[in-house]
Amino acid sequence: MRNVVVIGVGMTNFGKFPDLTVEQLGREAAWAAMKDAGVRPQDIQVAYLGNLTERRETGHISCVAQEVLMGVGVRGIPVTRVENACTSGSTAFREAWIAVGSGLYDMAMAVGVEKLTGRGAGPLTRIGDTIDGIAGFSPPGMWAMRARRHMAQYGTTLEQMAKVAVKNRKHGKLNPRAQYPKEVTVEEVRKSPMICDPLTLLDSCPTTDGGAAAILCSEEAAKRYTSKLIYVGAAVLKSGTYDSTRNIAINEIEKRAAQEAYEWAGVGPQDLDFAEVHDCFTIAEIVRTENLGFCKEGEGGKLVEEGTTQLGGKFPVNPSGGLLCKGHPIGATGVAQVAELVWQLRGEAGARQVNGAKVGLAHCSGGFIAQDTGASTVIILKR
Amino acid sequence: MRNVVVIGVGMTNFGKFPDLTVEQLGREAAWAAMKDAGVRPQDIQVAYLGNLTERRETGHISCVAQEVLMGVGVRGIPVTRVENACTSGSTAFREAWIAVGSGLYDMAMAVGVEKLTGRGAGPLTRIGDTIDGIAGFSPPGMWAMRARRHMAQYGTTLEQMAKVAVKNRKHGKLNPRAQYPKEVTVEEVRKSPMICDPLTLLDSCPTTDGGAAAILCSEEAAKRYTSKLIYVGAAVLKSGTYDSTRNIAINEIEKRAAQEAYEWAGVGPQDLDFAEVHDCFTIAEIVRTENLGFCKEGEGGKLVEEGTTQLGGKFPVNPSGGLLCKGHPIGATGVAQVAELVWQLRGEAGARQVNGAKVGLAHCSGGFIAQDTGASTVIILKR
Repeated sequence: MRNVVVIGVGMTNFGKFPDLTVEQLGREAAWAAMKDAGVRPQDIQVAYLGNLTERRETGHISCVAQEVLMGVGVRGIPVTRVENACTSGSTAFREAWIAVGSGLYDMAMAVGVEKLTGRGAGPLTRIGDTIDGIAGFSPPGMWAMRARRHMAQYGTTLEQMAKVAVKNRKHGKLNPRAQYPKEVTVEEVRKSPMICDPLTLLDSCPTTDGGAAAILCSEEAAKRYTSKLIYVGAAVLKSGTYDSTRNIAINEIEKRAAQEAYEWAGVGPQDLDFAEVHDCFTIAEIVRTENLGFCKEGEGGKLVEEGTTQLGGKFPVNPSGGLLCKGHPIGATGVAQVAELVWQLRGEAGARQVNGAKVGLAHCSGGFIAQDTGASTVIILKR
Repeated sequence: MRNVVVIGVGMTNFGKFPDLTVEQLGREAAWAAMKDAGVRPQDIQVAYLGNLTERRETGHISCVAQEVLMGVGVRGIPVTRVENACTSGSTAFREAWIAVGSGLYDMAMAVGVEKLTGRGAGPLTRIGDTIDGIAGFSPPGMWAMRARRHMAQYGTTLEQMAKVAVKNRKHGKLNPRAQYPKEVTVEEVRKSPMICDPLTLLDSCPTTDGGAAAILCSEEAAKRYTSKLIYVGAAVLKSGTYDSTRNIAINEIEKRAAQEAYEWAGVGPQDLDFAEVHDCFTIAEIVRTENLGFCKEGEGGKLVEEGTTQLGGKFPVNPSGGLLCKGHPIGATGVAQVAELVWQLRGEAGARQVNGAKVGLAHCSGGFIAQDTGASTVIILKR
């Protein structure tokens, strides 16, 4: 594997856009990334698109990747849709990294896109009808149990959980692309409608439409386009499950994905300047700051309470606003995290800039409902 | 990219299995491939699964790849579902090839699986409800137009088309895994129910459930397992469309995919001993024997009429029975073609063996309904 760099990123605004199609969202992100990189459609040699629901206005259920890419003039090349639940976008990024790293291609595009509201939307509303859904194992149900376990085992409090939402809303208010750029208080989080006890509406990420894209390039080829090289230190994917733990609050796959990513990138958690973490629920960010090695097991609640993970703190987590504020268009999320990493590492993150950021980590996990099968990705970028 | 070989393949019987789940079909194929290769689940380092409809009995719409692999003890590794319509399985094979060829992994598994009947099935029945479907652009509608164009332009006859079905049924009768191992006559093909004029039921591939799997390995690592090394000469994917042709009977992407595959593998059509071709309709095999360079443009009808492409002929096409007889479980098809190539190249194809086969080609195309977007793959294996 040779060195791979990211030379351009783009994303749509995240929000509810019932009148836009999945193709429109994907194309807007792809154009933005190409413009940012200064490349033309014909420069792209291979592309991967992360998408879960593939629900299009036309009713089609295949080739959404080709449809998105064709519409921005990227044609004739290998284009593949990948799906790994909430890690679909980060999986697309990883496949693009392998394709360039292998030496097969000099330039790749990773796109992530999801359309969850309005025309063409649909299947996610049926989670409640699945066997898991009927048994209460919807994502809120599962995370509510994890929250209760974490509270019982480590003394994590509802206030600590609420503070994750407060922090990420505060960060996201500084992000012009965020879905809910409005601050909230601990009291507002606790008093918002109960979704699945103890998780309230504001403990949960919203339903979001959006797209994101990134252009990856070999180090040699990249120098023709930019001097701001952002290196891919690692793009690790782990799937399935391990037998080693029966503690539902801990995800062994996330721990191992992080471990392998640190080895790949030649850094440890102590070398990171910030991280984008899959905060689908407030408790998820707490658990994951532990799994990723940012603090000891059971100390994730304290980490947010003490202000360590806020902008200006020692180790900002989710400076973009995270899923809780920026939004969570499933297939787009992993690529949008990469966009945030690149902007931060280039010093282009505006009001939410992490000063002097040199190394950033992005984490996604998807699946892991009742059966505990799913996928986790950890991406590390360095300047 | 280093040399990659296939050391094991497996597939389920193809047919209508309304009581089996997509997980069961995928797992049966994966077990068979591991057994054939003589490897254990823990030897697999990365896996890709091709699947279009991802419709599971549980109602879930994500992580079918992880579910299938977990059930055969393949856990903890990177597992990714890919979807490129009817090229989903061959795309999974290609990604596995890149993952091993890049040097990242020594052993990969590619699985293809599809569940189109009974419990958990569904979405494909809705093609008729899509915008394209309402406009008549279902796959039979599109291929009927292509057939008419080919007949008008090149003088291809209904009898020549029927002879593709007659040939592939004759081949498939020798394949214990085929869905319809029963010979038919030209008259039976023409008199079977009209689906979309001029295409009859027997001009069309059936609805099929099934799974297939392949184990890919670096050349060095492979020698620990077998002396029957089957080399991946090429695994090319092309997508989108080209502007260069407006002749609906010709698919420029297929031509370019074949061209690139021949360059990669260092062979030409004249060096092939046989091929598995995506014969979703009888006319499709005719057109594709032209696009892949097995004969000149417009001569595909003559090729089958003269017996060149039958077993015992100069250049057998679809010795397995093809989609028309073996069946077409969408995501599984591309990997099942690879299985046939491997059995033929090892001399293990039994009654349907192509004598002395040393080089084989497998072709899939998917998508390409009204918008003419889709994907084509060409895989070349050599012993």
